[in-house]
Amino acid sequence: MSDQKQVYMFYEGNAGMKKLLGGKGANLSEMTRLGLPVPPGFVVTTEACNEYYRQGKILTEDLKKQIMRALQQLEESTGKTLGAATAPLLLSIRSGAFFSMPGMMDTILNLGLNDQTVETMAKDTGNLTFALDCYRRFMQMYGDVVMKIDHDHFEQILEEVMAEFKSEKSQDLPVEGWEKVVASFKKMIAEQGKPFPQDPHEQLLNSIEAVFASWNNQRAKVYRRLNNIPDDLGTAVNVQSMVFGNLGDDSGTGVAFTRNPSTGEKKLYGEYLFNAQGEDVVAGIRTPLPISSLKDKMPAIYEQFVDICDKLEQHYRDMQDIEFTIEKEKLYILQTRTGKRTSTAAVKIAVAQVEEEICSRDEALLRVDAAQVEQMLHRQIDPSAKLQSLAKGLPASPGAAVGGVVFDANVAEERGERGEKVILVRAETTPDDIHGIVAAQGILTSRGGMTSHAAVVARGMGKPCVSGCEALKIDTVARMLKVGDQVIKEGETVTIDGSTGNLYAGEVPLITPQLSGEFNQLLGWADEVRRLKVRTNADTPGDARKAVEFGAEGIGLCRTEHMFFEHDRLPIVQEMILAETLEERQEALDKLLPIQQGDFEQILREMKGYPVTIRLLDPPLHEFLPNQEDLAVEIARLEERGEKGSLLQEKEALLKKVRSLTEFNPMLGHRGCRLGLVFPEVYRMQVRAICQAAVKLIGEGMDIHPEIMIPLVGHFRELEEMRKMAMGEAGDVMKETGVNFEYTVGTMIELPRACVTAGQIAAHADFFSFGTNDLTQTTFGFSRDDAEGKFLPIYIQEKILAQNPFMVLDREGVGELILQAVNAGLAARADLKLGICGEHGGEPSSIQFCHEAGLNYVSCSPFRVPIARLAAAQATLMEKEGTSEIRQGSV
Amino acid sequence: MSDQKQVYMFYEGNAGMKKLLGGKGANLSEMTRLGLPVPPGFVVTTEACNEYYRQGKILTEDLKKQIMRALQQLEESTGKTLGAATAPLLLSIRSGAFFSMPGMMDTILNLGLNDQTVETMAKDTGNLTFALDCYRRFMQMYGDVVMKIDHDHFEQILEEVMAEFKSEKSQDLPVEGWEKVVASFKKMIAEQGKPFPQDPHEQLLNSIEAVFASWNNQRAKVYRRLNNIPDDLGTAVNVQSMVFGNLGDDSGTGVAFTRNPSTGEKKLYGEYLFNAQGEDVVAGIRTPLPISSLKDKMPAIYEQFVDICDKLEQHYRDMQDIEFTIEKEKLYILQTRTGKRTSTAAVKIAVAQVEEEICSRDEALLRVDAAQVEQMLHRQIDPSAKLQSLAKGLPASPGAAVGGVVFDANVAEERGERGEKVILVRAETTPDDIHGIVAAQGILTSRGGMTSHAAVVARGMGKPCVSGCEALKIDTVARMLKVGDQVIKEGETVTIDGSTGNLYAGEVPLITPQLSGEFNQLLGWADEVRRLKVRTNADTPGDARKAVEFGAEGIGLCRTEHMFFEHDRLPIVQEMILAETLEERQEALDKLLPIQQGDFEQILREMKGYPVTIRLLDPPLHEFLPNQEDLAVEIARLEERGEKGSLLQEKEALLKKVRSLTEFNPMLGHRGCRLGLVFPEVYRMQVRAICQAAVKLIGEGMDIHPEIMIPLVGHFRELEEMRKMAMGEAGDVMKETGVNFEYTVGTMIELPRACVTAGQIAAHADFFSFGTNDLTQTTFGFSRDDAEGKFLPIYIQEKILAQNPFMVLDREGVGELILQAVNAGLAARADLKLGICGEHGGEPSSIQFCHEAGLNYVSCSPFRVPIARLAAAQATLMEKEGTSEIRQGSV
Repeated sequence: MSDQKQVYMFYEGNAGMKKLLGGKGANLSEMTRLGLPVPPGFVVTTEACNEYYRQGKILTEDLKKQIMRALQQLEESTGKTLGAATAPLLLSIRSGAFFSMPGMMDTILNLGLNDQTVETMAKDTGNLTFALDCYRRFMQMYGDVVMKIDHDHFEQILEEVMAEFKSEKSQDLPVEGWEKVVASFKKMIAEQGKPFPQDPHEQLLNSIEAVFASWNNQRAKVYRRLNNIPDDLGTAVNVQSMVFGNLGDDSGTGVAFTRNPSTGEKKLYGEYLFNAQGEDVVAGIRTPLPISSLKDKMPAIYEQFVDICDKLEQHYRDMQDIEFTIEKEKLYILQTRTGKRTSTAAVKIAVAQVEEEICSRDEALLRVDAAQVEQMLHRQIDPSAKLQSLAKGLPASPGAAVGGVVFDANVAEERGERGEKVILVRAETTPDDIHGIVAAQGILTSRGGMTSHAAVVARGMGKPCVSGCEALKIDTVARMLKVGDQVIKEGETVTIDGSTGNLYAGEVPLITPQLSGEFNQLLGWADEVRRLKVRTNADTPGDARKAVEFGAEGIGLCRTEHMFFEHDRLPIVQEMILAETLEERQEALDKLLPIQQGDFEQILREMKGYPVTIRLLDPPLHEFLPNQEDLAVEIARLEERGEKGSLLQEKEALLKKVRSLTEFNPMLGHRGCRLGLVFPEVYRMQVRAICQAAVKLIGEGMDIHPEIMIPLVGHFRELEEMRKMAMGEAGDVMKETGVNFEYTVGTMIELPRACVTAGQIAAHADFFSFGTNDLTQTTFGFSRDDAEGKFLPIYIQEKILAQNPFMVLDREGVGELILQAVNAGLAARADLKLGICGEHGGEPSSIQFCHEAGLNYVSCSPFRVPIARLAAAQATLMEKEGTSEIRQGSV
Repeated sequence: MSDQKQVYMFYEGNAGMKKLLGGKGANLSEMTRLGLPVPPGFVVTTEACNEYYRQGKILTEDLKKQIMRALQQLEESTGKTLGAATAPLLLSIRSGAFFSMPGMMDTILNLGLNDQTVETMAKDTGNLTFALDCYRRFMQMYGDVVMKIDHDHFEQILEEVMAEFKSEKSQDLPVEGWEKVVASFKKMIAEQGKPFPQDPHEQLLNSIEAVFASWNNQRAKVYRRLNNIPDDLGTAVNVQSMVFGNLGDDSGTGVAFTRNPSTGEKKLYGEYLFNAQGEDVVAGIRTPLPISSLKDKMPAIYEQFVDICDKLEQHYRDMQDIEFTIEKEKLYILQTRTGKRTSTAAVKIAVAQVEEEICSRDEALLRVDAAQVEQMLHRQIDPSAKLQSLAKGLPASPGAAVGGVVFDANVAEERGERGEKVILVRAETTPDDIHGIVAAQGILTSRGGMTSHAAVVARGMGKPCVSGCEALKIDTVARMLKVGDQVIKEGETVTIDGSTGNLYAGEVPLITPQLSGEFNQLLGWADEVRRLKVRTNADTPGDARKAVEFGAEGIGLCRTEHMFFEHDRLPIVQEMILAETLEERQEALDKLLPIQQGDFEQILREMKGYPVTIRLLDPPLHEFLPNQEDLAVEIARLEERGEKGSLLQEKEALLKKVRSLTEFNPMLGHRGCRLGLVFPEVYRMQVRAICQAAVKLIGEGMDIHPEIMIPLVGHFRELEEMRKMAMGEAGDVMKETGVNFEYTVGTMIELPRACVTAGQIAAHADFFSFGTNDLTQTTFGFSRDDAEGKFLPIYIQEKILAQNPFMVLDREGVGELILQAVNAGLAARADLKLGICGEHGGEPSSIQFCHEAGLNYVSCSPFRVPIARLAAAQATLMEKEGTSEIRQGSV
């Protein structure tokens, strides 16, 4: 280590050395190489930072030597000398990590000032006030950052002196005032411990050390956790000669984006202040001027700046965010970096830059953050609105909704039919609430997780939902809800944001983003690049239509139970479940057959030409029945009231049945193909409905591709039996109708055992569809509903897990099992079709995994289809480039 | 196929050809080779049977030719000819598969008789009655087996003729009667379809075909399913010349075991009848004579038979079950096979035969069915009692118990203290019932599965338990239970059999088996052979003591939650859970610390010198609180009664807390190390209790080896944090006390993700203990409590699964994951200690897997320790022999 180069002059570095020099250092180096007017300086590397920590927070002697050598070179190139009585060199000391962490770490300006150099500065600038102001600013920053003195101590002195001199603003303070401030600062600092160091070399080394130390301050650690930035990257330190924007009205400072970061418009966008330092622009005390006004005030500088902007955008092949300073009519560029932008701007800029031949299509595709694109697809709260959230639940189904609260599905339906906008508020929803959910703008529950009934149904319908909002106290009798002291009565308006989980009192402005022409253009390019097909999860013709509009190439998951939950069918489904004999059950199934056939006809018709994967009934039967506890309470009340009649007996009989079906762990219970094996008549009805729908549509001349999917297979024998059943029924329908149709039979792979024995299972499957929701639950042993409300947030906070594995596919565990299944499946059957239909199918990094794993398609909710198209293209491109580097560019 | 040899003369075969000739055929061949008096014959092979099915149930021409050639050789060697007018050959046709399937397939005797040969026979024997009786028996069997005529038709004719001739017994029927029977049989057979065939060659081929067909009759299929015998083995057919034990008083027939199959005593054991055929011995119409009496009646024959028995036992190196016939004072051996025996006899014989140098120790060890041995270790229902079961539940904890029923834990405790024997009967038990369970002889519940609270607690205590007995209607108000119409009131006696799940009314005789000297001898040999260590799962000093007596070499799983459930601690545990602040929780934990320390001291003391693996708290906290539904009902009742006081408020507050802790899928919820990560203070208290116990015992001069086990780890970060916590606490205790002690920290591997990422986890673990109960649940996605009561029995019945994976480890799925974990774990850390602590640790075939997988130890309940010692030795021996052949010899 001791022989390693740990300090680089700007002219020694370049943009490719971001890992070592940090983003800022690499860009300063690059700009220096480009011949741009960058104040000279050097970078102490991230490696030096890591070494600092390895040594137990000590700067090695070797590093100190390298710093001094670099300083000497800097002094030579500027003709100034640190601490010298004439031409003293002043320095800025700034952090700069691999990932930008704005404002998280520390900065020190005007380093090199002491009692002697401040006088030289006053002489050189002819401005003692300015020099004293610089000196006290330096003392203040150094005192805060290096000496850890509470900034209140400085503020207090400043206030006292201003009061003494009756100055309203610091600019008004006379020289005597500034002298007093400086003297008082020095006194106070010495009282706090050590005196303020007059030796600029000591100042420099201490400041570098302090920046290193700021890598691990509390706010930096939190920022990294929130942004998934590794803790072991370390920060570089940029030591740069100072330029001053506050030397008078021929000086100034500002920031500009080469394009509008909000809309993407191709027009310089930024602001500046005359006679100011960078922090003044940010502080907002003075109102900055728009960048365009510089054209009139300093035409030559403006022209030079525009040229530099063009040059930087061309060079970096992307929109830039540039900081500049004008010192006595000389322009300096202090920083450039890829500019953050909204998803709308990201799309617009990417497409425009391809047209302008600034970047290639592939680069454009990689530049739009696929995850961020979702905000363009749902109604959302106007980002410019300043809001105070009333409470926060789980972001169960994205999008925002406004409406009057109602506490009961019937009221919701009634008011909905009258054209009122309502938000259905329930402790938790049950199948009995479906008609209310349909009628509502959005759903809010106080219990249940991301896979609670409300969440699943809402996502299926594309309706916003906030679930598990535990701060909510719902009083259905008084028809009101309480959050803390705030009471909201039935009919009063609230807004929910299903993308963040926030609840707001009153109506909040919403915006409805559109799929722009540019976005369609970009997605068109994505389609040309990607290898993965993109399908959708859709249970209704409406969803299917929406998904096709968004570019879906089939249905990867059509859940038939959601059809069972519908208002008019639920009673028949319950009849089927409560049947005491096979005959009674068959009677109910006979009623369901034409209804299901109708469902399938509509969906197959909507998806004409595309494959449609239909999953047979999956949830445990008790999900279709009333809640056991509610029933028990109802019975107890009837008994207490002396009720002895048929109502009580009926309820008791129902409770008995519910009890016999209720399970300790429904997620691991009697569901999926376990139902099909115990009650084959139910699955047989569903297969028949699919087949009869197929026959009917073929009769209408349509091209259809139904794929029958058996859920929750863990052992090949389950699939073997169910496939036999399905083929038997399909054969019967063909015989009865004389119409042949194509179909396939496959399975969800959603249990670890299915992954481990995939070779055996593949022998009986035309396709595998990875159900990564359940696979994640069983692989981790996490019940999503329980985990997300209880320990998972703590796991992420404490960094036990880097990410919620239900959002981002866990490659090491779940992914490893998927790879085993893919390999064994393809070994057993080379033409096995492979897809994913868990929620991960719409999440970019998971889509990248699916691409790498060699799946044929991903399937996701309709709104996520565009995201998936883009992410699938990005996965192809990243594979081509051999990188999985994190993309930049979005806000 | 057509060129293959499908028929073997007895003298061409030997005992090693069991696969091809079936057990009976191979043994007849072997005895022929030994020069024993076996009536000559030949075997049609199992391969011929399989070919018969492959050809679509047709005997090939080639096979028919081979049969005729063999027949010809048989005729030459006997000097008799099939169907000849003089010296006609008569044959028996018997099935004989690889595995004995007694009585499942068909047999035909006296083949070769027709209207002509029956007369020759009458002449030759001088006994027309006998000849006619033989003829009608043959017709009856042939009619039944080959022609599929209902045997009632034959019985009816026989009864009518006997009535006509006023004969009470068939022996009394005069010749005219028999002639009438034969004539009526022929007439009836012809009326049923085709006439009875007079051509003995046709009889022969049809009979062989019929025996082949009987391989797939219903009862044979069921038998194979119940005994896990593959369907594709096929049966051989043995064609043998007839000998007659019913030619008069100088003839007879019988069966004998070379030793007593019930006790193992070395003494010929069997019975015989003069003037009888084999079926008469079995039929039980005449009372057979003990074999010893033959010594007086036919001394020479008896001596010859004893010689043969000795020879056969020496030759087969095991106890034999021999069938013999005496035809006119000439002894014939018709069959020998390894005799089935009780486990007691199996052990006694195995040990005795080693002492007699008949077999080696290794052979003796392989000859005792380890699974069967369990019956020797629990109190059990006297197998000689004839019983009618009242109802059947799940066999939740083995052993039988008798007592008066009580419906409430307090009553159980009260009566138990008075010395009464009680059976606690509950819908399901909760922690509140523990004192009642302690006081009861056994537990009976109407709800819950094999891992319900009652089942787990009862198994832990070694108390018999029948759970989920759904036929039970419990009326706690009237204090009685009902099964159908039968009412049992409180205090009335019942017997439960936790090994079978049966409930009996009244007191049933029980026997208490002992660990015999021979068994200890055998286990001693096992200990010398086995590589696997055997530990026990024990939560109490009593269990630990019992296990050490049975040979346990440590504790593989000490569950600390069972200590929490105890009557005097539960209130403190609930206080801890209901704590609103960390301070309140710490207060409760401070009370628990000395109690837990005491628990650990007792157990460590009991296991002195042996390692003790202590698992930190595992179940979700709501398991320690009252049931949510019960509380809701109670509150509803209070409200209905107009209650408004503090009781209601208290209950409501409790319900709120219970609700906030209750989970949708507790098995996948907030438990295991997830508790330790969210509430580190709980685990810290437990670790401290272990460490302080260690310090105390070391102070007493004891050698102790505590192993701290972190449950439910799925991600290495969980273990990393918990290990840090444990080591920190242990370090603190060492510092505080100045006493150093050895300890290790490891984890349960019970989640698929833990298996898949075992390499990462091993870096933080001193040991892995495979928790195969939960690993089976998550790998299959089966909730055991739900599956065993609902779909699992159907899965096994329909052969979706060959076995209950909670009883016998699923090698293809769960086993594969274990192998992945073992390999990755050892690659990461070569000295990683590996064990299993799921229930599979006491099941022989699973123990064999553990041996093959290279684990260091198995851990099982105390009563299963002897089984595990034996099974571990068998696994070593089977590996040495390169076989995993199913062992024989037990009833």
